[in-house]
Amino acid sequence: MTHTPPRIAPPTRTLMGPGPSDIAPSVLSAMAAPTVGHLDPYFLQVMDEVQTMLRQVFQTENALTFAVSGTGSAGMETCVANLIEPGDKIVVGVNGVFGGRMCDVAERCGAVVTKLERPFGEVFSSEEIEQAVTEVQPKAVALVHAETSTGALQPIEEISKIVHDGGAMLLIDCVTSLGGLPVKIDEWNVDAAYSGTQKCLSCPPGLAPVTFSSLAQEAINNRKTKVQSWYLDTTMLSSYWGSDRAYHHTAPINANYGLHEALRLLLEEGLENRFTRHMENHLALRAGLEALGLNYLVAEEHRLPMLNSVSIPAGADDAAVRKQLLNEFDIEIGGGLGPLKGKAWRIGLMGEASSKSNVLLFLSALEKCLMDQNYALIPGCSIAAANQQFIG
Amino acid sequence: MTHTPPRIAPPTRTLMGPGPSDIAPSVLSAMAAPTVGHLDPYFLQVMDEVQTMLRQVFQTENALTFAVSGTGSAGMETCVANLIEPGDKIVVGVNGVFGGRMCDVAERCGAVVTKLERPFGEVFSSEEIEQAVTEVQPKAVALVHAETSTGALQPIEEISKIVHDGGAMLLIDCVTSLGGLPVKIDEWNVDAAYSGTQKCLSCPPGLAPVTFSSLAQEAINNRKTKVQSWYLDTTMLSSYWGSDRAYHHTAPINANYGLHEALRLLLEEGLENRFTRHMENHLALRAGLEALGLNYLVAEEHRLPMLNSVSIPAGADDAAVRKQLLNEFDIEIGGGLGPLKGKAWRIGLMGEASSKSNVLLFLSALEKCLMDQNYALIPGCSIAAANQQFIG
Repeated sequence: MTHTPPRIAPPTRTLMGPGPSDIAPSVLSAMAAPTVGHLDPYFLQVMDEVQTMLRQVFQTENALTFAVSGTGSAGMETCVANLIEPGDKIVVGVNGVFGGRMCDVAERCGAVVTKLERPFGEVFSSEEIEQAVTEVQPKAVALVHAETSTGALQPIEEISKIVHDGGAMLLIDCVTSLGGLPVKIDEWNVDAAYSGTQKCLSCPPGLAPVTFSSLAQEAINNRKTKVQSWYLDTTMLSSYWGSDRAYHHTAPINANYGLHEALRLLLEEGLENRFTRHMENHLALRAGLEALGLNYLVAEEHRLPMLNSVSIPAGADDAAVRKQLLNEFDIEIGGGLGPLKGKAWRIGLMGEASSKSNVLLFLSALEKCLMDQNYALIPGCSIAAANQQFIG
Repeated sequence: MTHTPPRIAPPTRTLMGPGPSDIAPSVLSAMAAPTVGHLDPYFLQVMDEVQTMLRQVFQTENALTFAVSGTGSAGMETCVANLIEPGDKIVVGVNGVFGGRMCDVAERCGAVVTKLERPFGEVFSSEEIEQAVTEVQPKAVALVHAETSTGALQPIEEISKIVHDGGAMLLIDCVTSLGGLPVKIDEWNVDAAYSGTQKCLSCPPGLAPVTFSSLAQEAINNRKTKVQSWYLDTTMLSSYWGSDRAYHHTAPINANYGLHEALRLLLEEGLENRFTRHMENHLALRAGLEALGLNYLVAEEHRLPMLNSVSIPAGADDAAVRKQLLNEFDIEIGGGLGPLKGKAWRIGLMGEASSKSNVLLFLSALEKCLMDQNYALIPGCSIAAANQQFIG
């Protein structure tokens, strides 16, 4: 007889890491709705509605707006592989792990990559970008709007003007920002952007929302070479997601159900309300963390509200604290990536997880973990500070 | 106020097309289990169990066996992009849409592609492959084990010997065969194979099981160039799925829950029992279809039990029949692809959908649709024939 493992029975975690984030019950229910065919009239309607809602969240009228059938990194590869042909020049801002990943992806696409570097946690100035655009004359400039590895928010609007004045296209990573702070694709004149479902959209991972401007679509249509990835080729994907409905691949039906419900909840809350909620909970968490003596890695004006990166305080054991949070409180937070490994905690307040309850729960639990390590603190100090912030 | 669409409420279809197939309730429930993090100890255990079960289903000991975070076509691209470097020679058997797709994918990877062609519905002989291997001396030969577009089953075992004697590696597409008929990776000495979750594994689409032999892994490790897709690079993916657990991308957690449960059900039923069930239901469906005067596209000895391709009978309206099946009976079947468009129906009996009830339901419904089109038949003839076959 074959040995089979027991049925799936995951613990119920509070997901306060860099994603996945907490998921609303109705989104999980939607994931379990009856699967229909990928060309079923019902599914075609779901696709239309997902596109319409994605356009609202991206704040764009872009026709080519859809969900790639892969995770956020597949979204990154979709944007880069479609915009870039072998020999094309691209300037990539690297101030964290995901900028670095974009260089790797672009090089694999045959791009001539100019890597602009900044220490982890910092952002790029308009002047730096202007200089690079003038010197390199690239086809595209790629920046990470919200660096998930550091918690830094890159201003986009002014840079976009510089990039376009220099004759280039602008590509941005908004995996962590979309749905948690303003991402204004049209107003900022962004040519290509990708995100993931498991951050501020609060949906299980598995899809990557993307959007392309008409300028980007034109560039793609005028390519001399085929997009190197068949799976991620937007010239074919746009026929499936567009009115042709030409079969390309079998879309992940149930993942799209989940995204549909997550977008619906987001729009029912309203973009502005959602952004305000993310900011208020961030400020309360910050008050609590600072009361504990923890320091943010990113300068105040460039902090992401949905991803709080703090230095691990002297004397605290990174792995032990995260393990205790998980095992004693079922709370997941993230450790540092790359050069920040062992040096930072990344505390997410994304989508459903951005709640007053989570702020207070996390601070209480962290106090307990730090006290267990004989870390000197005034008991209750973080809760007092956070509640003071909530009261305003 | 923003207008949002209503909540997801799909119709309950009987999925008898070329996939997705019917899904067991416990698989849908697993899809809705609480999401945990992609590095959560619980999820790492799920990954281990998925790999162990996939090895049993692929009948292999291959270490590099896992689920790609994309659909079957992403599995195809994973296999091709990892095995092939620019300038490498590959022989691809094209006897349907998916062989053609493989040529496209391989060309985008820079391969020098030799296309072996056969009319849709036929399969390749050992002699043809031997001749091609001798002439081309390729790095790899790629064949479609179960052609989803035609319903043809390509024998593999003897060809594998020829391919390896010629110094090449063998890559097979078993998207539609895995879990419905024997796929013996080790016994047949297959170097790379990919599948999808939405066929005989009876799971929602979204993941692509793949497996690579040690010979293939060695070839990948000895590449002179990086795999052109970052997202599908097995040298990095094997670190996430292997004991390193190095973060690569955020795996689709809930899709893996679903696959876990689907594989568990499959192994509880037992591979042999499952293959027998697929064959018995196929024979009953065949008896019924033949009683209606319908003809199979594929010669008897090369027919897939899980995908029955028949010519649309003269006088029957393709679109009208499929629409009536869907709207009156909630049954999905597939139309023809490529040169078979408008000429064939593809009737799936895959995984959960391969049941006596579905055979009888479909035949009864098809009789009704054909009668509505004044097609000449003896009422009840298909049911009588199918039940005769069931009685044996």
